[in-house]
Amino acid sequence: MKSATEYLWFETKRRKELVNITEALQKIVAKSGVAEGLCLASAMHITAGIWVNDEEPGLKEDLQDWLEKLAPAGDYRHHATGEDNGDAHLKRTLLGHQAVLPVTKGRLDLGPWEQIFYAEFDGQRKKRVVVKVLGE
Amino acid sequence: MKSATEYLWFETKRRKELVNITEALQKIVAKSGVAEGLCLASAMHITAGIWVNDEEPGLKEDLQDWLEKLAPAGDYRHHATGEDNGDAHLKRTLLGHQAVLPVTKGRLDLGPWEQIFYAEFDGQRKKRVVVKVLGE
Amino acid sequence: MKSATEYLWFETKRRKELVNITEALQKIVAKSGVAEGLCLASAMHITAGIWVNDEEPGLKEDLQDWLEKLAPAGDYRHHATGEDNGDAHLKRTLLGHQAVLPVTKGRLDLGPWEQIFYAEFDGQRKKRVVVKVLGE
Repeated sequence: MKSATEYLWFETKRRKELVNITEALQKIVAKSGVAEGLCLASAMHITAGIWVNDEEPGLKEDLQDWLEKLAPAGDYRHHATGEDNGDAHLKRTLLGHQAVLPVTKGRLDLGPWEQIFYAEFDGQRKKRVVVKVLGE
Repeated sequence: MKSATEYLWFETKRRKELVNITEALQKIVAKSGVAEGLCLASAMHITAGIWVNDEEPGLKEDLQDWLEKLAPAGDYRHHATGEDNGDAHLKRTLLGHQAVLPVTKGRLDLGPWEQIFYAEFDGQRKKRVVVKVLGE
Repeated sequence: MKSATEYLWFETKRRKELVNITEALQKIVAKSGVAEGLCLASAMHITAGIWVNDEEPGLKEDLQDWLEKLAPAGDYRHHATGEDNGDAHLKRTLLGHQAVLPVTKGRLDLGPWEQIFYAEFDGQRKKRVVVKVLGE
């Protein structure tokens, strides 16, 4: 059995941003030597998530609009702590904060259009994604 | 350590459909020979998801109504590409596109009412779910 | 390869409740002897979920308000069965029903503020979470 653990660091220029991490994950899988297994990618900060969908600019804007509509910036009880990112916690919840990706023959076993994105909702500071590969 | 990979194919008659795949997954687990481990089921097309809930017709209609309310069919920027399925991408996002199921004593270790569904939001064409079993 | 399976039981006093299970999971991981691997925590009842976010009282209230807004209690077709918990099925769907947690050096490999919660939406009766640890 083999395992590998790596951390991807992000410091986005904008507060909200989608960063395609598919190639970064493929490299971690290749380096791990795992041929058959699972690869977990999980956002370690609670105002960021992981999205598995299409690298299409219009859709990415649609997603941001939709998240803003369902989990809008605004007043939250959480802001009594001095934070102003209540919406970012809810956006992470709505989108999901992790993905488990199958590894087959040493590669991420993705559908034809599946791309993996780090979804930042409160950026402009250093944040991490943990990547854990497990298999043989 | 053992692993198994299989692909379930779907071509639903309707555009939106919930297909119960619990027994199909149980068979893949049994065939894999894995007694203790994890089973990932992940929709490989970005307009479909996986739902773990109740095989109850009323609830399944409730789910579809609710998804339509929160991620309605309509105009999306994505449609500038010629597609008309922007809502299906968002419905997949809302529902979730995968489940990781525990395998115990050679069977999916599910709660009393847990059933696993392939959730199609843009069907009437061939699409796949990847199933990866990992364990011992 | 090592694996461990345990079940956490809950019987919440209120119908809706968030129960922090981070330490309970850490203990299961420690007992399993797994140093590098994955830990699945999955709500076995279809009206409960798992949330990975902040142990902050205001945010926890924000979450409940938000879930109530997007998946409100009310009339559902599911209630024709005699149940009155249609909203709880949708809240589980919105929040997500499981988390896969990385295990590194024998501990859950969490971000600085990540805590794991059992999210009950139809409590006051006995319900379970399955925990499966897999690794080496």
